[in-house]
Amino acid sequence: MQVNAKNYHTIWVHSENKQIVRVIDQRKLPFEFEVVDLYTAADAFEAIRNMTVRGAPLIGVTGAYGIYLGLIGATDLNWRTELLTFAEYLKSARPTAVNLAILIDEMVELLSVCSSRELAYDRALEEADRMKLREIAWSEAIGDFGCELIAEISKRKDDKPVNILTHCNAGWLACIDWGTATAPMYKAFQKQIPIHVWVDETRPRNQGARLTAWELSQEGIPHTVIPDNAGGHLMQHGLVDLCIVGSDRTTSTGDVANKIGTYLKALAAYDNKIPFYVALPSSSIDFTMKDGIKEIPIEQRDTDEVCWMEGQLENGKIGKVRIINEKSPVTNFGFDVTPAKYVTALITERGICKANEEDILNLFPEMRGKINSYTD
Amino acid sequence: MQVNAKNYHTIWVHSENKQIVRVIDQRKLPFEFEVVDLYTAADAFEAIRNMTVRGAPLIGVTGAYGIYLGLIGATDLNWRTELLTFAEYLKSARPTAVNLAILIDEMVELLSVCSSRELAYDRALEEADRMKLREIAWSEAIGDFGCELIAEISKRKDDKPVNILTHCNAGWLACIDWGTATAPMYKAFQKQIPIHVWVDETRPRNQGARLTAWELSQEGIPHTVIPDNAGGHLMQHGLVDLCIVGSDRTTSTGDVANKIGTYLKALAAYDNKIPFYVALPSSSIDFTMKDGIKEIPIEQRDTDEVCWMEGQLENGKIGKVRIINEKSPVTNFGFDVTPAKYVTALITERGICKANEEDILNLFPEMRGKINSYTD
Repeated sequence: MQVNAKNYHTIWVHSENKQIVRVIDQRKLPFEFEVVDLYTAADAFEAIRNMTVRGAPLIGVTGAYGIYLGLIGATDLNWRTELLTFAEYLKSARPTAVNLAILIDEMVELLSVCSSRELAYDRALEEADRMKLREIAWSEAIGDFGCELIAEISKRKDDKPVNILTHCNAGWLACIDWGTATAPMYKAFQKQIPIHVWVDETRPRNQGARLTAWELSQEGIPHTVIPDNAGGHLMQHGLVDLCIVGSDRTTSTGDVANKIGTYLKALAAYDNKIPFYVALPSSSIDFTMKDGIKEIPIEQRDTDEVCWMEGQLENGKIGKVRIINEKSPVTNFGFDVTPAKYVTALITERGICKANEEDILNLFPEMRGKINSYTD
Repeated sequence: MQVNAKNYHTIWVHSENKQIVRVIDQRKLPFEFEVVDLYTAADAFEAIRNMTVRGAPLIGVTGAYGIYLGLIGATDLNWRTELLTFAEYLKSARPTAVNLAILIDEMVELLSVCSSRELAYDRALEEADRMKLREIAWSEAIGDFGCELIAEISKRKDDKPVNILTHCNAGWLACIDWGTATAPMYKAFQKQIPIHVWVDETRPRNQGARLTAWELSQEGIPHTVIPDNAGGHLMQHGLVDLCIVGSDRTTSTGDVANKIGTYLKALAAYDNKIPFYVALPSSSIDFTMKDGIKEIPIEQRDTDEVCWMEGQLENGKIGKVRIINEKSPVTNFGFDVTPAKYVTALITERGICKANEEDILNLFPEMRGKINSYTD
């Protein structure tokens, strides 16, 4: 999508040196736009861990390129063992997003047939590129399916904008292009369906206020930033027509792990009879899990994310303020799980389905075997 | 309660000059502890409007002292007319808290029998002091009743702490002493019932992170600050035993207006079968209203509260950072309304009652007439 009227992806191979993978440094947005070069698997690990890149689809693709970068530095003799080592290492960078583990496992399996490091290295680039293009295609398909939902609501709004609430950043910045939750918005906007987006600030890291608001403003989509606390009030007063959020991991039964606070918005949508959609590529469905609350690991992140608030100082530089007295302890859970019963439907790259195992498997029948093998 | 091991109220008359009313400047907490002097009704108006003082009970008492300060500056000839003028003016400082209007109307009525400005001025001080002491007595009674609820839960916790979640600051800083939502916590702590408090940050003004956390740490009560988004996750995982929040205005039917985001926590408590209590003095019950969502006015506050985050810079000074790009619009609703069906019970100065008109009126039978006169 657009940054200062120029098209970007969130990750790409350097046009002049194929051994460098470039990413947008999302920690500095919206205040500074900077591109960072990754040279090694360790660079990719660190970019995922420190959230230079974030968002389940982008984390996954960065992991895939991390495997490629790892093979550049691997030895001809022991590359197979080394591959397994840095594959595990890369997978440990963030625990909640399942894409990372899935794409890395896919890479390892694909590369296992290569007879030399050199062949594996070429193949790794090819496969990482393919995964990247696949994510883009998935996002665009999600956009097309989701756009139909918005178009349907728009019909009864008499040219007034459809009000969409979103949480966190499931935007193109979290993916490669289009985004997941934002893809239907971009598609609707391109089709000149009037929309307005309520952007949840999304404490503690403010991905909504910092990233989603910036993305939407770069594309010219009408939007308003709100504190996370405001969504319930807006819904009670008829100011939200539908919610669309992303997902870091969805169980085969439709429970949705997403940024902390998503569950609260789903409850409010349910209480006010507002549709609550989750947009996700099937790569983030974990077919090995059935009970999201019990099974999905929820990472606890650095408490400094809560204690300190980063932003632009009055002099224009990036700086931070401490917002809690030093004696008070803090906790920082990264995600929560929205039970399937509060999810109106999932918007996937293959279409829209209810958030239950039967309907999900009807859309992804090839996963039936995988489900059964894990059913106890 | 305690500030650096010394007892304070949030508002008091200067011990050496009765024409000065002193308040704690709550905008600078927890980073600086400063006392501000109010000399005129305009000072009291400004202190309420700019949130030097905040919290429904404290706003009400500040309004009462504002009437007193206004009479100091009134003319002997026209004091009755002037009184009515600055009473209306003071009432307009904050629209949502009903205490302000109720206490000011009470003052105006009490002073109407005075035959001179001088008598009115003496009487005003007397009545404002009485209202202040009444608020303290109410808070303490709320604390005693609420403490019984905590003690009851503690019995089945095997000496493990009772986990209480609270939103915003309904602490002693919002009142005169003890607080409303915090009063049961202070009472329980004094009785050595083990408790731990989850303190919602409470965006956008961070009253939880800034004020409640500071209050509790000054009194030595175990607590942890969490982003507003985290409460649902904690409740899903059995980490919350009960919620206690305050109220800015409660209808005769038990709908509760409180800081924006309260409704979302009530929904999560309901979904997880966790009791959700609202602690309030009866002065914040509006017996003229029956439908909180339709009738309670919700103020929209300055959007800078959302765009800029104030705190302590790395050099120790109070400063702020901008957290949203300049092109993105923002809205800032101050309160939301939690429908009575999600409120387990109200904790009032007369005892605990269900959040419905019948039970509220059984506790406050003298209000039956007022209700009926407004029933259509």
